[in-house]
This record gives sequence, C-alpha cells and structure tokens, in this order.
Amino acid sequence: MIPELDDCILDHIAIAVDDIEASVKRYEQLGLKFDSKREVVASQKVKTAFCPIDSHAHIELLEPTSEESNIYKFISKKGAGIHHLCFRVSDIIEKQKELESKGFKFISVKPFEGANACLVNFIHPKSMHGVLVELSQRKEG
Amino acid sequence: MIPELDDCILDHIAIAVDDIEASVKRYEQLGLKFDSKREVVASQKVKTAFCPIDSHAHIELLEPTSEESNIYKFISKKGAGIHHLCFRVSDIIEKQKELESKGFKFISVKPFEGANACLVNFIHPKSMHGVLVELSQRKEG
Repeated sequence: MIPELDDCILDHIAIAVDDIEASVKRYEQLGLKFDSKREVVASQKVKTAFCPIDSHAHIELLEPTSEESNIYKFISKKGAGIHHLCFRVSDIIEKQKELESKGFKFISVKPFEGANACLVNFIHPKSMHGVLVELSQRKEG
Repeated sequence: MIPELDDCILDHIAIAVDDIEASVKRYEQLGLKFDSKREVVASQKVKTAFCPIDSHAHIELLEPTSEESNIYKFISKKGAGIHHLCFRVSDIIEKQKELESKGFKFISVKPFEGANACLVNFIHPKSMHGVLVELSQRKEG
C-alpha cells in the first residue's frame, strides 16, 4: 500500500476515443502494454481497453458503440480526449454521504454497478473545479 | 517496479485550476493529501502543488501566475480541468527519436528543463488522439 494513502487511490484515467484499436496502437508505441481483452459495457454503450500505468492505476480507453452513448456525445462536442478520473475507495456509500455533507454534488442519487461489477458514482465536475471524478468500490472491499 | 512496465510509468496528471488553495482543499476533502510545498515555475508562469495518487503517480495542480501563462489561456478557452498526462521515461532523447521515426509530432524540437529539473518534452495532441502527453526524464536516470 502507498504510505500516504489508506483510501482514495487512482484507479484509472478514462480517455474517450473514436477508434479503440488505433488508440491502443499509439499508446503501445509510447511504451504501454494493453490487456488483449476488450469489454463491451452494454449499459454505457462503450467498448473498453485497459493498460497498467502504475501499481494500481490504469488507462481505460472508451470507444462509443452507439450515438446514444455519453462518450459519443462527449467526442461530438469536445473531441476525443480525457473524459474522467476514477479513484478507488473502500466504502463508497460512506464516502458519498461524507462528501455530500461537505457540499459535493453527485450525478446519481446512489452508487450503481459499473464495469467489472464495481460499485461506482460520479462527482459533478462543478464540485471538482471542472474535473469529472468517478469513485469506485471493488467487490473485494 | 511494476511487472508490466520497465519504461513509461505515469508520473503525474496535470490539472489547470483558477485557485490552487481552493482546489487543494477540495481534493483533500476527497481523501488525498498534498505536500505543503508550493513551487512557482517562473518559465511557465504557474504555481504548482503535488499529491501522491499511486506508487509513482501524482496530481499536479497548476495555477497561472500571469495572463501570459499557457495555463491561463487554457482556462480562458476551455475552463479549469485536466491539462495533460505526464509519463516518466528512462531516456527522453532516445524515446523522442524513436517516436518521431514512427510519425509522432513533438511541441519542441528538443527536450528542455521542466519542473524539478527534469528533462521534458510534449507530444502534440494530434499525435495522441486529443491528449496532450508530456514525457519526463528524471535526473537520477
């Protein structure tokens, strides 16, 4: 575990891309190595690819599989690029409660199931000075 | 060292902010802990604050100290938010040479001295599907 952090470790940087295989190729030319697995997250209408960038953190590439995907809308409006940061927390329900008491606004009223069966929620960018932040609790705690 | 990576580890996520102390407070409410040190990087006209988010990776908050700062221009155009990702490499001159041979475009012809006396250069976002990527070589290798 990281000395300074007992909670709130970077889990992933999510990057919206038009063409996941073309982006994987670029990042691999940089020196990164992607898992060969590609997962389609039907609920969010995206295809994903992951690569490690530190002990815990990954890059998650997100390619929209439908024009109704939020990632499709993001790319249409702002172009491909970094979409959000995700931090891993040990107890997301407790963390949301604590942060809401300090004035943080969340996108969803309650955490919901995200990719890899994690329990997730998003903090509104207005509460994080322009950065969309996801919180994620792994099944194993 | 991370099993999958012998080069190209995430060094930091740089986030452009209007008010560094207000942002530090928000990220600390989230659960992160910032170094008390604030560094003004005169050449880039920014004030910086760092906090660890994984074994190697940090968040770097960047507040412009002048309207001539690129960070000031970024915020004026796009609002506060994530500015770039920085990956640590062992030999930046060799890496730039290798990537240019594969068609990557760099912002500067040669690496130059960045914060903490690192040798750095930026890959153009057009070469990284919309993401501004910094490469950084530490003095110790």
